[in-house]
Amino acid sequence: MEKNRTSKSEEWRRLAEQALWIAHSLFDRGKTSGTTANLSFRYGDLIYITCSGSCFGTLQEDQLTAVTPDGVPVNPDGPKPSKEFTLHQILYQSSDKIRAVIHTHSPATVLWSCLPHENPRDVMPHITPYLDMKLGKVAEVPYAAPGSEELFQAMRDSIGPERGYLLKNHGGIVGGTSLMNAFEGIEELEQTAWLAKELIHCSRG
Amino acid sequence: MEKNRTSKSEEWRRLAEQALWIAHSLFDRGKTSGTTANLSFRYGDLIYITCSGSCFGTLQEDQLTAVTPDGVPVNPDGPKPSKEFTLHQILYQSSDKIRAVIHTHSPATVLWSCLPHENPRDVMPHITPYLDMKLGKVAEVPYAAPGSEELFQAMRDSIGPERGYLLKNHGGIVGGTSLMNAFEGIEELEQTAWLAKELIHCSRG
Amino acid sequence: MEKNRTSKSEEWRRLAEQALWIAHSLFDRGKTSGTTANLSFRYGDLIYITCSGSCFGTLQEDQLTAVTPDGVPVNPDGPKPSKEFTLHQILYQSSDKIRAVIHTHSPATVLWSCLPHENPRDVMPHITPYLDMKLGKVAEVPYAAPGSEELFQAMRDSIGPERGYLLKNHGGIVGGTSLMNAFEGIEELEQTAWLAKELIHCSRG
Amino acid sequence: MEKNRTSKSEEWRRLAEQALWIAHSLFDRGKTSGTTANLSFRYGDLIYITCSGSCFGTLQEDQLTAVTPDGVPVNPDGPKPSKEFTLHQILYQSSDKIRAVIHTHSPATVLWSCLPHENPRDVMPHITPYLDMKLGKVAEVPYAAPGSEELFQAMRDSIGPERGYLLKNHGGIVGGTSLMNAFEGIEELEQTAWLAKELIHCSRG
Repeated sequence: MEKNRTSKSEEWRRLAEQALWIAHSLFDRGKTSGTTANLSFRYGDLIYITCSGSCFGTLQEDQLTAVTPDGVPVNPDGPKPSKEFTLHQILYQSSDKIRAVIHTHSPATVLWSCLPHENPRDVMPHITPYLDMKLGKVAEVPYAAPGSEELFQAMRDSIGPERGYLLKNHGGIVGGTSLMNAFEGIEELEQTAWLAKELIHCSRG
Repeated sequence: MEKNRTSKSEEWRRLAEQALWIAHSLFDRGKTSGTTANLSFRYGDLIYITCSGSCFGTLQEDQLTAVTPDGVPVNPDGPKPSKEFTLHQILYQSSDKIRAVIHTHSPATVLWSCLPHENPRDVMPHITPYLDMKLGKVAEVPYAAPGSEELFQAMRDSIGPERGYLLKNHGGIVGGTSLMNAFEGIEELEQTAWLAKELIHCSRG
Repeated sequence: MEKNRTSKSEEWRRLAEQALWIAHSLFDRGKTSGTTANLSFRYGDLIYITCSGSCFGTLQEDQLTAVTPDGVPVNPDGPKPSKEFTLHQILYQSSDKIRAVIHTHSPATVLWSCLPHENPRDVMPHITPYLDMKLGKVAEVPYAAPGSEELFQAMRDSIGPERGYLLKNHGGIVGGTSLMNAFEGIEELEQTAWLAKELIHCSRG
Repeated sequence: MEKNRTSKSEEWRRLAEQALWIAHSLFDRGKTSGTTANLSFRYGDLIYITCSGSCFGTLQEDQLTAVTPDGVPVNPDGPKPSKEFTLHQILYQSSDKIRAVIHTHSPATVLWSCLPHENPRDVMPHITPYLDMKLGKVAEVPYAAPGSEELFQAMRDSIGPERGYLLKNHGGIVGGTSLMNAFEGIEELEQTAWLAKELIHCSRG
């Protein structure tokens, strides 16, 4: 039974390959740095998430670690799941449609997360139509220490129909109907944050 | 007949290889992101365009899909052409010299498309001589929703002798006498937009 | 004896491979340029440091040169150690926990090193919690010419419990418990410096 | 005789390999774009320069074309030398020590070339000691159209003991005692220009 759950099918390999490409690509293009990003995807009745301390620049297949939807590592001797797993879990629990989650500290996204915003349920300006097309409104999660129960509770309190969230003074997290859908969301979030901060500079003076 | 039209010659392979290099290079260097860019080229009496949903970072040969000049996919069971095909078509119809079209959401180009400009037929400042040498004047296309008939009509109304267009609050589109010529144009457009926004900051204060 | 000291074990190869990946990655992502960066790691009773004039973009295994902790090159005919070796040495001498050192001229870090700061023992703003989590407080080393005895003395005078230092009008230097730990530190230092300079622009006006 | 002059020795291959690495690296890291850069190096009694229309992103060995010091292509049927050859030639003629020349439109360098500067023989601020260590003072060449006799004359009138020049509203050109020395110069020039423009933003307000 346990064996079936973790056996690696062709479908799993396709998803893992996509996850690795996304991780490497985000890192190589400066959309994340160091070891602060994490991503996950649903496969069968499990969630696979990047392990604690992994780096998107060197991510390998054996650093994708299986966790049950209620947060129990399938292989207790395997690599430890990211300590941000609960943030992913809350997104999966918010909608059956969410099949993948990506969290990064993309520079402009982090910058935008450090600025005050009027409407916590709609913190990104709608500069081009693409944020709405690729992600929709982005809600804010109040600050709490990374990996803390306070942050998980803040995420639970903030969760809504949105797929994208800005963690205050921290970074972005995006759920998607697929890995590529989540990727498109996190890319458009960073593009929008970059445009937003540049427009502040341009409109001033 | 249909077979001849889609048979892949050496010349086609050379063009496809160039198209893939351009796509990958634009993506890897941050000149486009996510799945929002598209490109096309003429070959024989057909136009090959990147398919709907394709990503410049992973673009493959079989994602270049053949369409007749009047917009009919050659292979109805093949990958769907980009929904922006009509924008490309309008550029091809504007001049027989145009053999390739590239459309991106390059960051500074998008930023510049969000700012007001005095002369809609010349929206890019002529900071260095290279915009004129590589592309010429750039005209503006008023805003309409991506992929909408309104946007196609706005493009038709804006089309002129120019090879480069700024789609308002959206991005840039450039026609060229060859793939590399269109590539040079889209590169110089982004370089010019970056210089233009930096000069706003430098000249102020 | 000499032979034992320089024989290349599996462990050495693992460290060298990591050092090369870090160097190439920092260079390819624009976190350093030209030939100005250097890095080192402890192995057995020796320190291996990148040789003088080496470029992070092309760094090879034979450019990692062995030096004794008191600064004597193990192989007098081998490539000359970086002239910044003494800066690394001072960090190693400050704590047994430091097993690797990375020094770069990352753009935003250099920019921040050129600005005046109130508290020389805490020159980076604590914008997100990650600087503290990955590196801790960063202290400033007053300006002296690169490679000069004056700079080495300034570094000795500034050394404290911190792992990260900003060399005035020069760049950043970070010690770590491992190569990856130092890498995480230098990455977060650059991310923080970028956020800090952007927040100056955003908060003004 | 002619044959000897163009025969490809081990030394030539080493230089060509270095030239290709420099070109690809500058392009991949956004230090140049499109087809606007060119580079050259001395080998024996000839100068090898990138051919007209070549792109640093795809530069190949057969695009390095041999020219005599007085500007005559060795192989009249080979690829045409860059139309900026005369700019390189003037640098070679200024000192026997110059063995390589690199010209790019690196973004911040071009930006800086568009701003007014007080002292035409020293247009780059000395922010860190590295500009002096890697390149020295940078002089300005007044504007004239790219590839024009007026530009060549302006370059002749501006030439002095400096190795680095800023072509007004155009880009940078750097001579070096070797390809890697010229590379270090062009890298430090762009780093300095980026720091200089950022310091304008930071000091204002």
